[in-house]
Amino acid sequence: MSDRSRNWWGWGWAEEALGDDEVAGLAQMVRERFADRDFSVIPAPDIAEVGLAPPRVDVPAALSGLVRTDDEDRARHTYGRAYRDVVRAVGGEFAHPPEMVIRPGDEADVVSVLDWAAEAGVKVVPYGGGSSVVGGVGATIEDAPDGWVSLDLTEMDRVLEIDEVSGAALIQGGALGPGIEAQLKAHGQTLRFFPQSFEFSTLGGWLATRAGGHFATGPTHIDDLVESMRVVTPAGVSESRRLPGSGAGPSHDRAFLGSEGALGVITEGWMKIRPRVGWKTSAGVEFTTWNDGVAAARELARSHLQPSNCRLLDAGEAQLSLGVEVGALLVLGFESAGEPLEAWMQQALELCFEHGGAAPGGVTTSSPTRDEEPVGDAGSVEAWRSAFMRAPYLRDGLIRCGVLIETFETACVWSDFDELHTQVTNDVLSALRGIVGDGQISCRFTHLYPDGPAPYFTVMAPTRRGSEVAIWDEVKTAASEAIGRSGGTITHHHAVGRDHHRWAQTQRSEVQRQMLSATKERLDPDALLNPGVLVDRA
Amino acid sequence: MSDRSRNWWGWGWAEEALGDDEVAGLAQMVRERFADRDFSVIPAPDIAEVGLAPPRVDVPAALSGLVRTDDEDRARHTYGRAYRDVVRAVGGEFAHPPEMVIRPGDEADVVSVLDWAAEAGVKVVPYGGGSSVVGGVGATIEDAPDGWVSLDLTEMDRVLEIDEVSGAALIQGGALGPGIEAQLKAHGQTLRFFPQSFEFSTLGGWLATRAGGHFATGPTHIDDLVESMRVVTPAGVSESRRLPGSGAGPSHDRAFLGSEGALGVITEGWMKIRPRVGWKTSAGVEFTTWNDGVAAARELARSHLQPSNCRLLDAGEAQLSLGVEVGALLVLGFESAGEPLEAWMQQALELCFEHGGAAPGGVTTSSPTRDEEPVGDAGSVEAWRSAFMRAPYLRDGLIRCGVLIETFETACVWSDFDELHTQVTNDVLSALRGIVGDGQISCRFTHLYPDGPAPYFTVMAPTRRGSEVAIWDEVKTAASEAIGRSGGTITHHHAVGRDHHRWAQTQRSEVQRQMLSATKERLDPDALLNPGVLVDRA
Repeated sequence: MSDRSRNWWGWGWAEEALGDDEVAGLAQMVRERFADRDFSVIPAPDIAEVGLAPPRVDVPAALSGLVRTDDEDRARHTYGRAYRDVVRAVGGEFAHPPEMVIRPGDEADVVSVLDWAAEAGVKVVPYGGGSSVVGGVGATIEDAPDGWVSLDLTEMDRVLEIDEVSGAALIQGGALGPGIEAQLKAHGQTLRFFPQSFEFSTLGGWLATRAGGHFATGPTHIDDLVESMRVVTPAGVSESRRLPGSGAGPSHDRAFLGSEGALGVITEGWMKIRPRVGWKTSAGVEFTTWNDGVAAARELARSHLQPSNCRLLDAGEAQLSLGVEVGALLVLGFESAGEPLEAWMQQALELCFEHGGAAPGGVTTSSPTRDEEPVGDAGSVEAWRSAFMRAPYLRDGLIRCGVLIETFETACVWSDFDELHTQVTNDVLSALRGIVGDGQISCRFTHLYPDGPAPYFTVMAPTRRGSEVAIWDEVKTAASEAIGRSGGTITHHHAVGRDHHRWAQTQRSEVQRQMLSATKERLDPDALLNPGVLVDRA
Repeated sequence: MSDRSRNWWGWGWAEEALGDDEVAGLAQMVRERFADRDFSVIPAPDIAEVGLAPPRVDVPAALSGLVRTDDEDRARHTYGRAYRDVVRAVGGEFAHPPEMVIRPGDEADVVSVLDWAAEAGVKVVPYGGGSSVVGGVGATIEDAPDGWVSLDLTEMDRVLEIDEVSGAALIQGGALGPGIEAQLKAHGQTLRFFPQSFEFSTLGGWLATRAGGHFATGPTHIDDLVESMRVVTPAGVSESRRLPGSGAGPSHDRAFLGSEGALGVITEGWMKIRPRVGWKTSAGVEFTTWNDGVAAARELARSHLQPSNCRLLDAGEAQLSLGVEVGALLVLGFESAGEPLEAWMQQALELCFEHGGAAPGGVTTSSPTRDEEPVGDAGSVEAWRSAFMRAPYLRDGLIRCGVLIETFETACVWSDFDELHTQVTNDVLSALRGIVGDGQISCRFTHLYPDGPAPYFTVMAPTRRGSEVAIWDEVKTAASEAIGRSGGTITHHHAVGRDHHRWAQTQRSEVQRQMLSATKERLDPDALLNPGVLVDRA
């Protein structure tokens, strides 16, 4: 697919990581924002200097062809790609790496690995693209005192079957976003599931974490796009029938959506696909105030219009990601495979104008022409998307010059939103002021439901060398407590992992914790899978 | 709400049941269809002649104010309202009635009933409106050898709170459809959930059975409309947070959606509501062949148009319910609270015309005018809906003149549909020919998904006096086996109950049966709740 290589310590492609000069430039920009701090550039880490402890477990002979134990691979699989992970990696801190990385080639291999692990008393952490920002794909010493292996599924990366009549494809769990799209494109089809981690996350990872997708409204979560799944659990294989809808008891697939590798390994899924997009129309709508933008977003979400894109950025976000000075900016778009969308955009704009919005850049529309590729994104949507995909590389650069930069997200009902927004903003700023004396927070909506938004916050502050993780921990706690107190969920689409576990448990009633435990004990009686995630450690 | 009374032996209101003359008229009509059979009219049953066995369990003193033990109430709660139930009731067969009917006034009463039942060793069958057509609300002698009580939730019928900003209402589990709508209407709001059983089914029943709603496409199942739920289980109360979306682990509410009273009693739910509808547009589109209609329905389901109504009737259904002679009839409609819909209907009709459709009756449109009630249904949709609501009363009349009349439904992916349609039709007709020598079957689509339809079959045949249940059982088996073999689900929205249990279990893999059992054992360790439903009898 590419001769680029994956960065073993930070986000994405090694070749796309910011160079020292670019990081120095970032440091200069940050100095203007936060005066009188140490923003000197930390060098990128060198794998030769890291010195990982040798594996504590022997490579199983029968699986040896699937196993790698070299330092770079083990280091790359030690963490996900959260702020804290990159801080530790840049600092050369790899105290508890996996003993080995195992890459199964098929479902039988997955079964063999689980059998071996049960025998050997070794924990297994399923690993897709490794892009977790919530501590979902590593293990602490408490999680796995006798060692753990990283089960990297990315060799299982094929689209096995396409049913164009129904609009569905059978895809292996280890397929990364670009591989899925490339294989579907040959048939004029698309899954159209584009999280920020698109290039570095897998179908199985999306399903295991209930990932949020491309569309701002309507069916967009991976939950909405799955017909059926196969999941290898230590107790056997769960397999569901391909069905567009069923009322035959509770959905078993729903028990695995969000199971985060703690109940089983998702090996394949029948996914709803669609013909590639032909028609697109987009506009950037500016509002004088955030509240006007929120009111317009709420009405759009409650209308029958269902825009494909409907991302509301506050002033800080618009400035950060697009360099636009505005009270609030709504990035609005519609798309369809086969029909024009003028009426949709017109009704949506009228609704925005009633809330004081203006669209100074007009509407950008593209339509298909025969023998041509389906159209690309256009206008505001394109500008927004390009900044969005670049953001994690920038984050890694900022980490290297001593900036705390963190994003977190939630969802709440509309009636709770104003209070949640105020509390989260105030509590985070107050924590930052108390700890590091400065900082900023901004907000956007990533997804909209008729009954509420999914707000996404970006925090940026100076931090102190050597105390990055402790400071992050305090800020994260302030944010998470404020979210819980004001009616939000601890995560809308980033998942729970180890970082959100205690708040996710608080969010459940005792009976619900019992339900999860009962399922875990039945499916994974030896607690092999992703320890420390989903249920309390045994 | 009404001075009408509920029919204790058949569907709906006693006053709406067909009179003897009307039944005689039906018999005459049926004689023309199926020659040389006994269609003499069986009298409606008389409760005074039924003679129920006395309760085998003493009324608990602490709950006595909630209990009724009179014959009519116990008889009414003995069965749901399936064909087989009405046959037995008309025949005066009430061998295993509930010992008593208990009507809790609040959640604390529900807890008390479960505590008492655990102590007394009595089974508890949660009962909403009692409209089950799959044996969901009774109990056999094997299910409850030591007796059972019917827990009628309909005293818990209030809308407790309305959040107009978010578009949600907190509604008690025992509220029936009309009560919900009347309470919401005072605020200009609606749940817009209109199953055929609307008048005789409750919110809790809908949630427990994953009921299918008003809209033919898009979010329409009760599953799609719920923000959060409270469920009383023998192990404690499950309560979820009101959230428009959440990625914090698997959804606990999903474990109760479809639990059919076997895991807990749903006492309340926050439900997504919407402003009452203002704009409506509808059309009846005729096709020369069923296959043309199916092709158009498939394209509509896969488009971005999302019609509110999109019911495709085959020739038999169109004739039966609307008296129209046509190859296939598509009942097409759009509705919205606030925006006109011309573009939507126009694009939908163009798509139908491309598949050979014609709309000889044109388009009926209604829009709101100030100071007026929101508009009613219009045109084809209205005619279809009125026949739809009347159908179960007709069924009871047909039963009284010796007709086997049964409906069953499924869902499958588009690529399986033709084969499923053929197999189900052939197998049912072949079974009918073998058993009773005659009969007919017709099909319509009740709901459409991008990846497949929900086909709904109506079977009508002569039957033999005294063997009605045995004959039904053979026909039901033929239909269910054909559905399973050709990739459909055993139920799309009628639920599983006792009638579909063995096929629902076959549809699950062993690991999935284990998951259900683990949850059942944790939540209901004494197997008190709705025995014989959801999991195999202990």
